[in-house]
Amino acid sequence: MGKQAKTAIEPTREKNYPEWYQEVIKASDMAEISPVRGCMVIKPWGYSLWENIVRVLDDMFKETGVKNAYFPLFIPISFLEKEAEHVEGFAKECAVVTHHKLEKGENGTLVPAGKLTEPLIVRPTSETIIGDSFSKWINSYRDLPVLINQWANVVRWEMRTRIFLRTSEFLWQEGHTVHATKEEAVARTKMMLDVYQKMAQEYLAIPVITGEKTESERFPGAETTTCIEAMMQDRKALQAGTSHFLGQNFAKASDIRFQSDKETEEYGWTTSWGVSTRLIGGLVMTHSDDNGIILPPRVASSHVVLLPIIRKDKDKTTVMDYTSRLASRLREKTYYDRPIRVEIDDRNIGGTRNWDWIKKGIPLRVEIGPKDIESDSVFVGRRDKDHRDKAAIQKDVFVNEICDILDEIQNTLFQKALAYKNKYTRNIDELEIFNAFFTPKNNERPEIHGGFAMSHWCGDAICEKRIKERLNVTIRCIPYNQENEAGKCIECGKESNKRVVFAKAY
Amino acid sequence: MGKQAKTAIEPTREKNYPEWYQEVIKASDMAEISPVRGCMVIKPWGYSLWENIVRVLDDMFKETGVKNAYFPLFIPISFLEKEAEHVEGFAKECAVVTHHKLEKGENGTLVPAGKLTEPLIVRPTSETIIGDSFSKWINSYRDLPVLINQWANVVRWEMRTRIFLRTSEFLWQEGHTVHATKEEAVARTKMMLDVYQKMAQEYLAIPVITGEKTESERFPGAETTTCIEAMMQDRKALQAGTSHFLGQNFAKASDIRFQSDKETEEYGWTTSWGVSTRLIGGLVMTHSDDNGIILPPRVASSHVVLLPIIRKDKDKTTVMDYTSRLASRLREKTYYDRPIRVEIDDRNIGGTRNWDWIKKGIPLRVEIGPKDIESDSVFVGRRDKDHRDKAAIQKDVFVNEICDILDEIQNTLFQKALAYKNKYTRNIDELEIFNAFFTPKNNERPEIHGGFAMSHWCGDAICEKRIKERLNVTIRCIPYNQENEAGKCIECGKESNKRVVFAKAY
Repeated sequence: MGKQAKTAIEPTREKNYPEWYQEVIKASDMAEISPVRGCMVIKPWGYSLWENIVRVLDDMFKETGVKNAYFPLFIPISFLEKEAEHVEGFAKECAVVTHHKLEKGENGTLVPAGKLTEPLIVRPTSETIIGDSFSKWINSYRDLPVLINQWANVVRWEMRTRIFLRTSEFLWQEGHTVHATKEEAVARTKMMLDVYQKMAQEYLAIPVITGEKTESERFPGAETTTCIEAMMQDRKALQAGTSHFLGQNFAKASDIRFQSDKETEEYGWTTSWGVSTRLIGGLVMTHSDDNGIILPPRVASSHVVLLPIIRKDKDKTTVMDYTSRLASRLREKTYYDRPIRVEIDDRNIGGTRNWDWIKKGIPLRVEIGPKDIESDSVFVGRRDKDHRDKAAIQKDVFVNEICDILDEIQNTLFQKALAYKNKYTRNIDELEIFNAFFTPKNNERPEIHGGFAMSHWCGDAICEKRIKERLNVTIRCIPYNQENEAGKCIECGKESNKRVVFAKAY
Repeated sequence: MGKQAKTAIEPTREKNYPEWYQEVIKASDMAEISPVRGCMVIKPWGYSLWENIVRVLDDMFKETGVKNAYFPLFIPISFLEKEAEHVEGFAKECAVVTHHKLEKGENGTLVPAGKLTEPLIVRPTSETIIGDSFSKWINSYRDLPVLINQWANVVRWEMRTRIFLRTSEFLWQEGHTVHATKEEAVARTKMMLDVYQKMAQEYLAIPVITGEKTESERFPGAETTTCIEAMMQDRKALQAGTSHFLGQNFAKASDIRFQSDKETEEYGWTTSWGVSTRLIGGLVMTHSDDNGIILPPRVASSHVVLLPIIRKDKDKTTVMDYTSRLASRLREKTYYDRPIRVEIDDRNIGGTRNWDWIKKGIPLRVEIGPKDIESDSVFVGRRDKDHRDKAAIQKDVFVNEICDILDEIQNTLFQKALAYKNKYTRNIDELEIFNAFFTPKNNERPEIHGGFAMSHWCGDAICEKRIKERLNVTIRCIPYNQENEAGKCIECGKESNKRVVFAKAY
């Protein structure tokens, strides 16, 4: 291979990161923009990835005692209005249903008819409608805790959309719990954040920082918002999951009261927590390269594609039989509690076939030709290595070791992402360096800046606001797992005892 | 037990069937009416049943090559209008989104703002929006067949709603396929109907009749609608699933064209097929008795509840240890590819505890007290038997045989439902008997009538309409699996060569 290798994705990350992202999604065949403004179509290759994410999370939730349920898609405006900050946060961008049928209008086209007495909004999140049910379900401390999760679609009428990362409709889960004490609700908030961290790091191979949001970045109506934040390859932050301690705000708004074991009447303490199809966007932006996406094996849509190589008709039966026997053997093996997922692609379309699977990000590509069969071996390409770097492996060895190989790829992806995040995360204590860190050096690539700055902050929202206005940089979180450390606020110089994560963000 | 046994559900089926149904659902804790008109809240006990149904169907679909995907919740009116019959069928009852935000109105309350240039409807079904994607995905015969399924919520603004059976929002799956030939599309339509029949009979224990709808009962835009029809305990029919052959109607409406292997340009042949949470309503109306629901073991929310009996404090540790060890052993066993689902209920609330589980329809209730432990046995009640009919079984025998016992219950439920359906299905050849069959004898119970009449029909929509107007009876289907038989139309006396199923229906 003396030629300069071309990349499969044009433009490259280097040339134009936002366009590269769109092209990677397109080339992977995971999803596409729909004709409905801001909504996406999730195609089978993308949906299968989502199904795997759902299965892992759902099992984790259930292990903590959470049960699934389903609540209405529509929320009456009067419900939304029950919590003042909440309505403030969501009224600006929501789909409003005002009519319940269509009728022929004057010029023969269909127009809305049957006006509703109270308009409904399509749920942007379900605290208020679920709270209404909780208020009926809960009477006594014996009914607590209530631990509910819902897998659902939600709608937020975003002005600027970007596939998977910010869409008008997206798929998510929203957990909602009620507890008898503040301590228990706070502990549940942290427990679910831990679940999200585990999911991100151990399954999606995305290293994350966990911590608390500042007041200005909190979920509307929450007392505390905790989050996992990841670094994308343009060094921007992505909020990948949030877990909220809601105090008694929503319990008061929805009248969730119970009789305590001391026979007093109390309001419940609630939490809510969610992750969405945005995780897929985060996964793509973390692991993809200039040849397309790279799927982490533990959630990959599929693990391995078998590519029979048939140059002469007489070889066809031998090669196809060998291929389908290998597929059966692989499918009998278990990786992370589920059978290995195997594709067979026997299209006769030349090199395009191999590139299709590289762009789809499948962890392993296995070529099977007459010569390989003669030596009872297979020719294996790994998506975490250069596309030309393929190796012959004895078939039985490959079958026996496939789970180890997949875990090796999983680990490589995580370590690579972790190294990237660490490389572009810096402790910064001087304002001049801080400003320079977030100022792109090259105007042609405005997205390339320093990364995450770990700097001191006095706790004042005014400093936070100034930085945001000047640099479009926000405090992503006040991270957990740090020792107190005396320092000075990067903006005003006042005393501070902790560093926070500053970054540009999606 | 000398006393007259009271029933747990009031009123009984006999006294008031529709109210009995509502009460059964309520007592089972499966679902409840929501404050949003016509929408329901599916509670954990009901949702878990749905999850099991979903898992079984999803595996069956995937075995036939179908892949899951996800399409937008919203459909532009212009899309709906592409197929004339289709829009006619759905425009009358759909939720219309006209605005994308809320603003404070004159009196301080929130009012819709940000009017959309083209209103959107919330999907009542997705042929048109999915067709738009298909038209982009398909170019050549090599791209075919396309076999897609979507698990989603849909909205039809029903005027009269009944929990699970007819709700404004419901959960369902909708399969959509495109084929190069008519034959292949017709075969797929039948294949999916067979999947539904298998699901209904082998998992839900609901015997069904399969057949084709008459023209007047077809899905709007379909060439052929095939269906599974079941008999409820009030002898009414429930359409439990449909599979449509759409011909080239939707392919023409959505411009789904492909280049054939003869290099001609052709329209695709499409199918669609769906079942919904209505299946749960059908399951309840098929198997429940006057003590509540009875869950078929193969899809039951849970299989067995362990009820520790602790009368003295000193017994507590022994009984609870024995119970939790038994639970672990049962959970290690596999029933229909999944672990046995076990509940432990240690609430100290007297007889209410046992009745709660009877009303929830769990297949097995197991009492464990100090005396049972002494003899290493358990005291087992089966939901398919009288609630007083319990038996001591050696614990090891119970553990070893639990899967057989569950399958025995499954089989009993199916056989009982089949006997009921057969008992109230009659060949009727005389109009007078036909009319009497569908005329309630007792005005206080207007729902009790004859059942299914297998009668001849000439094929004329006028006869069908007359019968509907006179008796509120419709042709449920022209059943498959019947020999041609010469006869005379029950309404007009003209010649007919087949019987059809007449019934009142949900």
